[in-house]
Amino acid sequence: MDYFNYENGELMVENVSLARIAAEVGAPAYVYSRAAFVGRLKAFEAAFADVDHLVCYSVKVNANLSLLRLAAAGGYGADIVSGGELFKALRADFRPERIVFSGVGKTAREMAEALEAGILMFNVESEEELEVLAKTAADKNKRARVALRVNPDVDPKTHPYIATGLSGSKFGISHKEAPAVYARAAASPALEAAGVACHIGSQLTDAAPFADAAARLRGLTENLRAAGVDLKYMDMGGGLGIAYREGETPPTPAEYAARIKNVVDGLGVKLILEPGRFVAGNSGVLLATVLYNKQNGAKRFVVTDCAMNDLIRPSLYGAWHDIVPVRKSGAPPATVDVVGPVCESGDFMGKDRPLQPLVAGDLLAVKGAGAYGFAMSSNYNARPRAVEVLVDGDNFKIIKPRETYEDLVRGE
Amino acid sequence: MDYFNYENGELMVENVSLARIAAEVGAPAYVYSRAAFVGRLKAFEAAFADVDHLVCYSVKVNANLSLLRLAAAGGYGADIVSGGELFKALRADFRPERIVFSGVGKTAREMAEALEAGILMFNVESEEELEVLAKTAADKNKRARVALRVNPDVDPKTHPYIATGLSGSKFGISHKEAPAVYARAAASPALEAAGVACHIGSQLTDAAPFADAAARLRGLTENLRAAGVDLKYMDMGGGLGIAYREGETPPTPAEYAARIKNVVDGLGVKLILEPGRFVAGNSGVLLATVLYNKQNGAKRFVVTDCAMNDLIRPSLYGAWHDIVPVRKSGAPPATVDVVGPVCESGDFMGKDRPLQPLVAGDLLAVKGAGAYGFAMSSNYNARPRAVEVLVDGDNFKIIKPRETYEDLVRGE
Repeated sequence: MDYFNYENGELMVENVSLARIAAEVGAPAYVYSRAAFVGRLKAFEAAFADVDHLVCYSVKVNANLSLLRLAAAGGYGADIVSGGELFKALRADFRPERIVFSGVGKTAREMAEALEAGILMFNVESEEELEVLAKTAADKNKRARVALRVNPDVDPKTHPYIATGLSGSKFGISHKEAPAVYARAAASPALEAAGVACHIGSQLTDAAPFADAAARLRGLTENLRAAGVDLKYMDMGGGLGIAYREGETPPTPAEYAARIKNVVDGLGVKLILEPGRFVAGNSGVLLATVLYNKQNGAKRFVVTDCAMNDLIRPSLYGAWHDIVPVRKSGAPPATVDVVGPVCESGDFMGKDRPLQPLVAGDLLAVKGAGAYGFAMSSNYNARPRAVEVLVDGDNFKIIKPRETYEDLVRGE
Repeated sequence: MDYFNYENGELMVENVSLARIAAEVGAPAYVYSRAAFVGRLKAFEAAFADVDHLVCYSVKVNANLSLLRLAAAGGYGADIVSGGELFKALRADFRPERIVFSGVGKTAREMAEALEAGILMFNVESEEELEVLAKTAADKNKRARVALRVNPDVDPKTHPYIATGLSGSKFGISHKEAPAVYARAAASPALEAAGVACHIGSQLTDAAPFADAAARLRGLTENLRAAGVDLKYMDMGGGLGIAYREGETPPTPAEYAARIKNVVDGLGVKLILEPGRFVAGNSGVLLATVLYNKQNGAKRFVVTDCAMNDLIRPSLYGAWHDIVPVRKSGAPPATVDVVGPVCESGDFMGKDRPLQPLVAGDLLAVKGAGAYGFAMSSNYNARPRAVEVLVDGDNFKIIKPRETYEDLVRGE
């Protein structure tokens, strides 16, 4: 499943050399592998093939329309969190009845748009939201299918910013309070209590917490059924971690699926799964050009043309991304910080990395950049956002052009 | 200088109520006061009126063209860090001979653009950069005026991400190595060794480190003169802190100026100052609408329509921004986290804030949002970027329209 390999010392994406891509489109550039993206969707899907399920690609991770279209064309659903994501999902031809709308801050306008489209389900995160959804649906003479996002209070052991299922987080409804809220939903003619949802966090490298969360959701589903609320869907969210560092071995989709399937066996619900990072993360790299070497005190720096505006994960989460040369020289490595042009000490891609000696014009690939890369990029320091490229076998195409200076002043 | 005051319990920007602005343009919205922005530029300028100087507004802080035009029209210069900022500065009619180009990762293309424009000076950060600049200038038959950005190794006591003058940071050239690099610059026919520069960090709330840095630069200037390199400019960078929290009392421009002027007295250099946050930070607020109240365990949350994609400072730096109601109710406050719709626990504007009881539709103002607010905003979660509004007396106008869903798919 790794379509990023060296051939004769040159880093390839499928059959295309990154050096060739850089020569044609420049850097910084996000480069994705179609085979990797589609292959991971299929691998994830296959892990649940023996149970009733729907895989919904998590749009927030990487929302480029060309990637969304790959997922939509494969028959997958979409996990969205905003009106903008709904717009993109529909533009990419996801079938509305395979779209699930999550998020703590849906506006009435966004709800109306989603009801109009006829999406599968709203994952509702608070009582107040439930009221607004009921009113919005009633105003439109529609019935909204609802899952409550329940907070199973399971510690996912990940970065605090992406741990989202703990009591005291802004997400979800406490599992103790859930039955009362379900009763309200069941009592509303504009709502259908259709499912239960959770999302315990992102980048989990241990599958056990998923089983704990599924068990909590199973218990809740059984209790609700006893009370006359018959749920059809169990949405387990996303969160399966990936290897950001060579040698890491996060759970495979099969291991992840086994944990969940074990717990829900015989319950008679349709499982909804929302992979995102797993699909896109290691299906893309960020291509950078070396600009300068410099040394300050004992520290050596490689200054590249990629910055925190292109990829904020190292700065925001202290995230690790492997950084490798596009052309291997075989020369012994030295320890350097790989930094960008932005005027902040927080602008780095990696610190204390062993890298072969590099000179201006050399290319680097920042790995694992397919998820939360371009999606979080900005124009900070008036930097045009990077070009996005999709490789397919022997060919590649631009799937979003590099922004221009004129783009920076649009509307100003 | 505070143009954000309550009148009859309503928060005004100059003479316009924020509620009126919200009614007309919606939220999230960045709202700036022209009088505050221009007033702070003038106050900063006045503090240096008795010495030879040039105030260069730091474009990275807030690069909206309408604000840049205010600075350009006032006769100020521009501190830029990229080709995109050069483009915006020229578009805003800054005079090229008042533009200073800083940054560790200037590309040859950006240098060529700046030479073509005829800017005042390049603040060069490494020997390799000096070589590229010399070659680029020679190729164009131009002579580039150069300051070396020297690393004075002064601890600014600010957030590590915005401390930029310490040995071991990626910025500048060690003051010990500077004389040798100046000798190289002086020897190149394509370069003119014109000045010395530093920038010790951002959001400094103590003026003493500026004096330490100025003293180091003075010593270097005197030594270089003795060696036959006659520098005309001393660029002290930016970094003057502002009050993000009611009651904070950072140095005034006069206090800041006094520290520096004392040190450079009689040296015969033109001072270059690069205020940014001081000018823009408290000249703008971010307007948010309350969507939901919710409670999880002991925690109470106010969910608004503003998110980390709109203002990333709380999440990225743990930065504090005062958050106030647009309409004061007088009701006793409760302690809440103010959070946004984005699916991360890191998506918050403020934690544990005492706020009056709020209901859906109520408006909040996130203060101190004029600097590093819109400039760092992104489309994360497929959220269109906010509208920007400029208030002038009794009137306001949109200076950048809210992005649309169509903007999210441009070029895809």
